Amino acid sequence: MITKPLAMLFAATFTSLACLAQGNQPAIVEDFKPSSLNQPGQEYPQVNSQGYARFKIKAPKADSVRVSLGLGGRGGTILTKGEDGFWTGTTAGPMDEGFHYYNVTIDGGKFNDPGALNFYGSVRWESGIEIPAHDQDFYALKDVPHGNVQQILFPSKSTNTSRRAFVYTPPGYEKEKSKKYPVLYLQHGWGEDETAWSNQGHANLIMDNLIAEGKIKPFIIVMTYGMTNEVKFGKIREFKIDPFQTVMVDELIPYVDANFRTLSNRDNRAMAGLSMGGMETKMITLNKPEVFGYYGLLSGGVYAPEDFKDKTKPKLVFISCGSKERPDGVKKSADDLKAAGYNAVSYVSDKTAHEFQTWRRSLHELAPLLFKN
Amino acid sequence: MITKPLAMLFAATFTSLACLAQGNQPAIVEDFKPSSLNQPGQEYPQVNSQGYARFKIKAPKADSVRVSLGLGGRGGTILTKGEDGFWTGTTAGPMDEGFHYYNVTIDGGKFNDPGALNFYGSVRWESGIEIPAHDQDFYALKDVPHGNVQQILFPSKSTNTSRRAFVYTPPGYEKEKSKKYPVLYLQHGWGEDETAWSNQGHANLIMDNLIAEGKIKPFIIVMTYGMTNEVKFGKIREFKIDPFQTVMVDELIPYVDANFRTLSNRDNRAMAGLSMGGMETKMITLNKPEVFGYYGLLSGGVYAPEDFKDKTKPKLVFISCGSKERPDGVKKSADDLKAAGYNAVSYVSDKTAHEFQTWRRSLHELAPLLFKN
Repeated sequence: MITKPLAMLFAATFTSLACLAQGNQPAIVEDFKPSSLNQPGQEYPQVNSQGYARFKIKAPKADSVRVSLGLGGRGGTILTKGEDGFWTGTTAGPMDEGFHYYNVTIDGGKFNDPGALNFYGSVRWESGIEIPAHDQDFYALKDVPHGNVQQILFPSKSTNTSRRAFVYTPPGYEKEKSKKYPVLYLQHGWGEDETAWSNQGHANLIMDNLIAEGKIKPFIIVMTYGMTNEVKFGKIREFKIDPFQTVMVDELIPYVDANFRTLSNRDNRAMAGLSMGGMETKMITLNKPEVFGYYGLLSGGVYAPEDFKDKTKPKLVFISCGSKERPDGVKKSADDLKAAGYNAVSYVSDKTAHEFQTWRRSLHELAPLLFKN
Repeated sequence: MITKPLAMLFAATFTSLACLAQGNQPAIVEDFKPSSLNQPGQEYPQVNSQGYARFKIKAPKADSVRVSLGLGGRGGTILTKGEDGFWTGTTAGPMDEGFHYYNVTIDGGKFNDPGALNFYGSVRWESGIEIPAHDQDFYALKDVPHGNVQQILFPSKSTNTSRRAFVYTPPGYEKEKSKKYPVLYLQHGWGEDETAWSNQGHANLIMDNLIAEGKIKPFIIVMTYGMTNEVKFGKIREFKIDPFQTVMVDELIPYVDANFRTLSNRDNRAMAGLSMGGMETKMITLNKPEVFGYYGLLSGGVYAPEDFKDKTKPKLVFISCGSKERPDGVKKSADDLKAAGYNAVSYVSDKTAHEFQTWRRSLHELAPLLFKN
């Protein structure tokens, strides 16, 4: 099912994780503050107004401490030991805006920064740091009505277990007891899990804010684990969609429709995903065009007009990526689809790579386009 | 408000964290398996059928690696380096059944075990390990109807922010659209947060299983963050309940009653907490006897008959701890209360200390006693 260019896209973009912003480096401004993703009370890591990150980690008897973040494939940031037993260091340049995963190598072993919160990525819980973005307001926690994010455990005969998903219900869901809502099924990327869109992505806050501003029709979001069959990094071409498609279409959707107040038809159901989740979205929407009316690929490949074998056109195809990925391919895909009579929209996130700032922005762009029946 | 014996109880019991089970040590049985709390795909840490824990951590250039778990105050488990660059070691004896927090000291710095999931305790995200318990069935994930655990963000004027709580709604809550439910407000301990009762405690699975067995009347559980004012370890006598009492009684309860289908009177509202959460429960229930009808202190102090100034007696007072804590005080408290005409129940968890196995069992004992109006 997976096309060669798509598989190569993943291989290419994964390596751009945590790359530095481009350009000449100005003098470092000493206005560092604790990252918003630090553990309670922790002073480090810190970030400054230019986007530099500074680390401080205690390991008095260590011989070497290195942070994976800061220099892309070129070894990260090497920390130096002070007389107090703390290792410190600052990235060689400003980081891209938004969220970055990282880890710390202490004497050859890979650990997390004790100062930072952890986020599931790369098939492990990694340290996370947030470089404040100029547009961070759209995912900020504000004094507006908040929806809930709830963990559900749904029965899955095909995998013989109870599987977990998180369900965002918009503000007012509990009070408006007879109202029914459309549903977006939203998938994480390779090595992440069903916690990613809430924890790293702030999907719930993006929705709360858009709803408070009257910019979208409230809808439900369902996020579940997409690595149903094990897929090793670099082996994504061997990925088979069938096990996950069964969980999604035959088990999760019926459970959500039975247990939440959903509008349970194609025109009120969307699927979108980031990176590998986009690949899954493409496969499942093309296999099951009767199930989903809106499709979104966020840094997760493209559709070509000839992909659509079904005579019923999707209501919307949304394709996005960061400007540091392959924006030309994304734009061309939407142009080709539009020329062929499809409702297609492309979005390119400015100055971001294959990282969550791209996907936060993509969700923010996608949400107002959904369920415009 | 806090009485001297209670403060001392906390000081005494905190030091017993992660203590070894008593008795002569038999030969180690080589049937080690990965802990159920490992990160996906991780082989270590492992536990065997006797309750020994074995660790394996990569740090090829480190000079010393020590795990905090295994010898109580006596330095934990010292790992030794193999030729492959991995440090390994086994606890000197079997651990108590259930959940334990731990961390790893690498060359003098405190980190987490890269193999284990993290759990918030001691005001940091710590590594966690699970020693299978003979009675683990009552909190196992089974093929029964599952309730949901949902994150809510409720407005708090007194702290000028949106605060987080988790709400367990029982199976069927979404479908039975007119049914109203009693509510248990359930608090974590010092250094933990609102994630503890679900993550470490499996409160949702304990409820799902009790409901499936027909042993309890379904109710809602609300869990929020109780360290509203900063309280340093060892300074618990300086704790002031007022800020948290305001959040709980004036902000959280009205929000929950407005947004969930609750039975919103005293006889359908309980408060319980573990350790510091028990201290909070005692203070708030005595200050606000008109708000709560059922009180539970889990390793969190005791009530004396003279504590109750209000003429309306609580419907139930539940007091528990582990057998390795101070069971005599717990039993005496319940006896004294019963002699004074109160409905009091004590419970002592066999062969456990000031740890989550005591509290899982305590919730399992408490739940069937609640809301028997």
